[in-house]
Amino acid sequence: VRARSIAVLCGGFGAARFLTGWREVEGLSCVVNTADDIEHAGLYVSPDVDSVVYSLAGRFDEERGWGLENDTFVCAEALDRFDLGWFRIGDMDLATCLWRTTLLREGVPLSEVCRRQAGAFALTASVLPMSDEPVRTLFETDGGVLAFQDFVVRRRGEPRITSVRLAGIETARPAPGVVELLERAETILIAPSNPITSIGPILAVPGIRELLERRRERVVAVSPIVVGREPVTQPEVGRARVRQAVLAGRGLAHTPVAAALLWRDVAAGLVLDLSDRSFEKQIRALGLRTLVADILAKTPGDRARLADAVLAFARARD
Amino acid sequence: VRARSIAVLCGGFGAARFLTGWREVEGLSCVVNTADDIEHAGLYVSPDVDSVVYSLAGRFDEERGWGLENDTFVCAEALDRFDLGWFRIGDMDLATCLWRTTLLREGVPLSEVCRRQAGAFALTASVLPMSDEPVRTLFETDGGVLAFQDFVVRRRGEPRITSVRLAGIETARPAPGVVELLERAETILIAPSNPITSIGPILAVPGIRELLERRRERVVAVSPIVVGREPVTQPEVGRARVRQAVLAGRGLAHTPVAAALLWRDVAAGLVLDLSDRSFEKQIRALGLRTLVADILAKTPGDRARLADAVLAFARARD
Repeated sequence: VRARSIAVLCGGFGAARFLTGWREVEGLSCVVNTADDIEHAGLYVSPDVDSVVYSLAGRFDEERGWGLENDTFVCAEALDRFDLGWFRIGDMDLATCLWRTTLLREGVPLSEVCRRQAGAFALTASVLPMSDEPVRTLFETDGGVLAFQDFVVRRRGEPRITSVRLAGIETARPAPGVVELLERAETILIAPSNPITSIGPILAVPGIRELLERRRERVVAVSPIVVGREPVTQPEVGRARVRQAVLAGRGLAHTPVAAALLWRDVAAGLVLDLSDRSFEKQIRALGLRTLVADILAKTPGDRARLADAVLAFARARD
Repeated sequence: VRARSIAVLCGGFGAARFLTGWREVEGLSCVVNTADDIEHAGLYVSPDVDSVVYSLAGRFDEERGWGLENDTFVCAEALDRFDLGWFRIGDMDLATCLWRTTLLREGVPLSEVCRRQAGAFALTASVLPMSDEPVRTLFETDGGVLAFQDFVVRRRGEPRITSVRLAGIETARPAPGVVELLERAETILIAPSNPITSIGPILAVPGIRELLERRRERVVAVSPIVVGREPVTQPEVGRARVRQAVLAGRGLAHTPVAAALLWRDVAAGLVLDLSDRSFEKQIRALGLRTLVADILAKTPGDRARLADAVLAFARARD
């Protein structure tokens, strides 16, 4: 862990989009949610890890919301013949999954697979799973208990959620390196990912929440919730619907204030979108510093500027 | 097993090419070599079974010599990043392998997987693996002991073979249905596949050779060796080289007479190519009936005629 190292807690799409602005930043380490991982067609799929790695490699397909740019879906279509086509994995993305599955079957821990994966994609940043032990998000809904991808992909987020469970969380331990990273990082960021299903599992790994509470002054979060601008792209719309549903299940309204309420004990600051300036006062009243910025920045230049602003905001505690 | 059922012992390329002429024939059941099966990138690959299924489905890529027509290799190329690219599987072909691997991991026997695979490809013919137990061809060479695909694909068939072993053969049993099929079939054909590495393992499964010796009058073979015409296509050239190498390892010259010598106890007749008519007398002297035909028939019409001729030849014992 370097002197000025930056740790980022990450989910999938939101984190991957945000991280496009951080590719040039040195000393970056990502701790990634693995509670959405799924075994499909015999493959161990780790959607958030892959989104983060592909983003840092400059190859994330932001338009689709997951996987690799310019990927094809020849295998996924051929899987239809065997009724395995509902969860689509791109052909290039499959190579990552095949390789990962082989290593895991050989007994290589997920954290070591992630380390090698970052190497295979020539990343300068580190990528750590939140835990080497399996943790799985389960939704209790009016349509029964559904696994994350089942709910989001197969059922399109439609059943009404009554609660969210994390199977395996009690016995999960932080992956090797995670505690050391978070103890020593100069700055800790919470990426704009779903607070319940993406960041929630990371915070729930025994020890992590307490650690961040202790280092709260070092932590700032970027709001995953933007309500002043309508979601536009298909992945934005889909994720907003799931976010709204899981927040409602916790009795929370879908505004940046929800992020403040959920993270006030672990973060000292919250970055909110230009379009959500009206919530700033309420968030400050909850004891959080605020930065208003263009969270949904589109161009590479704007994203790099967002990164600079967030970093300056985080360091402003000094 | 139907009254006029036809059983065919099959390897990969040679059998797949031959079977293109048999798609309209009723009562066909294929018993397929599985000693070339390989686990690669965590996938259970069964090249000969797939070649036979794809051929009977009218989708075999004869030009490449394996796999599906019009397949793409996006995943295989992406596997290069992880040093898993040496054994190439097409993207559509991958779907078959993923599905098969999942079922085998769930404990479904290979024979049941093959049955379902034939159904998924809407075949009228049955496809049976020679055995549900793993049997693996191993080459002892001047470059060490090599598995089949290692020798053929990775080492391009170049090391000098000193002997061929079948690991696991002693404890292998014929797959469910194989003995019943071969006991009751009206006609048994040996497809033009490598006599040592493709047909050899099938005959070596305990009980099969004795069964065929007993039913020898019902069995005719199609010579996999044609020397009167030079191999032309890349798969023909590659397979001729491997065949020549393994026959040399048994002290046999690469002519149709080798097939007669290897199969005289299990087959009553041998079909040899028009271009190899000069060997007919020698083969008859070994106690085999002969049929001279256009084994390398190219057009669908010629192949269907070859099938008719072979079937008439087999039934001519009556």
